[in-house]
Amino acid sequence: MKLTILGCYSASPRNNFHTTSQILEIGGDLILIDCGEGTQMQLRKMKIKFSRIKNIFISHLHGDHFFGLIGLISTFRLYGRSNDLNLFGPKGLKEIIDLQLKYSNSWTDFKINFHELESKKSVSILKNEKFQVKTIPLRHRIYTNGFLFVEKHKEKKLNMNNIKKHSINYTDFSKIKNGEDIILNNGLKIMNRELVIEPKNSSYAFCSDTCYHQEIISLLNNVTLLYHESTFLEIDNDIAKKTLHSTASDAAKIAKAANCQKLLLGHFSSRYKNLEKFIDESSKIFKNVDLAYEGLVLEF
Amino acid sequence: MKLTILGCYSASPRNNFHTTSQILEIGGDLILIDCGEGTQMQLRKMKIKFSRIKNIFISHLHGDHFFGLIGLISTFRLYGRSNDLNLFGPKGLKEIIDLQLKYSNSWTDFKINFHELESKKSVSILKNEKFQVKTIPLRHRIYTNGFLFVEKHKEKKLNMNNIKKHSINYTDFSKIKNGEDIILNNGLKIMNRELVIEPKNSSYAFCSDTCYHQEIISLLNNVTLLYHESTFLEIDNDIAKKTLHSTASDAAKIAKAANCQKLLLGHFSSRYKNLEKFIDESSKIFKNVDLAYEGLVLEF
Repeated sequence: MKLTILGCYSASPRNNFHTTSQILEIGGDLILIDCGEGTQMQLRKMKIKFSRIKNIFISHLHGDHFFGLIGLISTFRLYGRSNDLNLFGPKGLKEIIDLQLKYSNSWTDFKINFHELESKKSVSILKNEKFQVKTIPLRHRIYTNGFLFVEKHKEKKLNMNNIKKHSINYTDFSKIKNGEDIILNNGLKIMNRELVIEPKNSSYAFCSDTCYHQEIISLLNNVTLLYHESTFLEIDNDIAKKTLHSTASDAAKIAKAANCQKLLLGHFSSRYKNLEKFIDESSKIFKNVDLAYEGLVLEF
Repeated sequence: MKLTILGCYSASPRNNFHTTSQILEIGGDLILIDCGEGTQMQLRKMKIKFSRIKNIFISHLHGDHFFGLIGLISTFRLYGRSNDLNLFGPKGLKEIIDLQLKYSNSWTDFKINFHELESKKSVSILKNEKFQVKTIPLRHRIYTNGFLFVEKHKEKKLNMNNIKKHSINYTDFSKIKNGEDIILNNGLKIMNRELVIEPKNSSYAFCSDTCYHQEIISLLNNVTLLYHESTFLEIDNDIAKKTLHSTASDAAKIAKAANCQKLLLGHFSSRYKNLEKFIDESSKIFKNVDLAYEGLVLEF
């Protein structure tokens, strides 16, 4: 998986401080997560090819997470897109997009498959040969979902060192890949787990916007990378509580409880000039933490 | 009047090539004309104070002219605006804005006065102590208006040279300002026009998007500055005709026929790398022509 941050600030977009948008690449497919105003300009700036975006996931209908979507869809149309576009987001998204296309008399030539979300429980919303996606129900001022992306099981690799050690013939390789144990000519049984290298399947969880919400912990168990919003620092905990946002500490508590491998903080309020304080605060609770910034690329 | 160009390109916004948006300042009031995606970032970049915008005029509901509006309105809300906002634009604009505010559960604390336009004739839509605004019905693929902004008559100034020459007493000054002729003690009548300097009232006409449409000429007579779209050059006249846009020649013909003082071209297609060709083409028909560019400020 490869994650590119297009924008990671809350509320209003400013130059070089764009609102939420990310590109996740899994097996060559591009996934867009949230789409604040100006996302299409950020995609151009980072030389990401629009046409490779097949799936778009929108967390919630606050403007800083979707006001760039109608513009992006219009640009897809202007550039002659023909491939289907899959759009996952809260109920209402279709009505908003359709209304604007109606008044501009600019219907798209490609098909938009709307998958409107209403469930308050975690549901599986996409499965293909490369990955699967589940919702992570969050707690915010309006209906909001995070998204959990899990790579599909990769094929087991042969552990050639052990295979050579036991002089196993290549005719047995398909059996080994299928998980079978091997009985040698001398009658010795070699367990399958000795003969393969288990594949590492990465996972990515996007959680924004939300207050501290411990119900999500069980969904995040052992994820490779957790992006969790941290709009505020603990010093502004009262505002965080009031607006149903998280602090850096809240995000770290979630990452620790869920045993995540790495935590990425984002959705910063513009009131903070020194973002290092977010690291100071969260790393006291969870060590492996980083700050999102525009243009950040993480491979995992 | 002072015009600032925030964006002057057609279709899709790119970095440093923003779609249509302009600020017109009349007597300290800021007017926003069209509002493509990213307009709020352009306003920040050019250090224009958001809160001074009282009136917004939207020409038509193609995305490159209004997709930035909902974001700007949301930012007004976030920054605690309390003053009314007057919004002039085609029918449908209210429905689009209201729907997005509804789903984000983010109603504004300030009042938005929607003035939805449907007339196919030129109508007066705003009059205050500083200026008045009329629509300029344009011909495009969907219902579109240009806007004519005319300064209100300034007070006549006294021509002090002639007043001194005729030894006229200051007790007659208010009569002169009211347009009266003056009869001197020797019986000689001095005509009012000799005693005053006629004020110069500037006017600005915004015409985008439109094909060549000669019905607008009578509305544009003698305007100080005409901004007329010129999406294409004559070499692409067939596309201009098909999409109901203008060429540089079309714009120049309108400026010439209406005896405008100056022509400003904009709404360029991204297909042209060398915009000087727009000047070459139009100046053969109308001499006093310039190209719009982001950050251009014109006082007139």
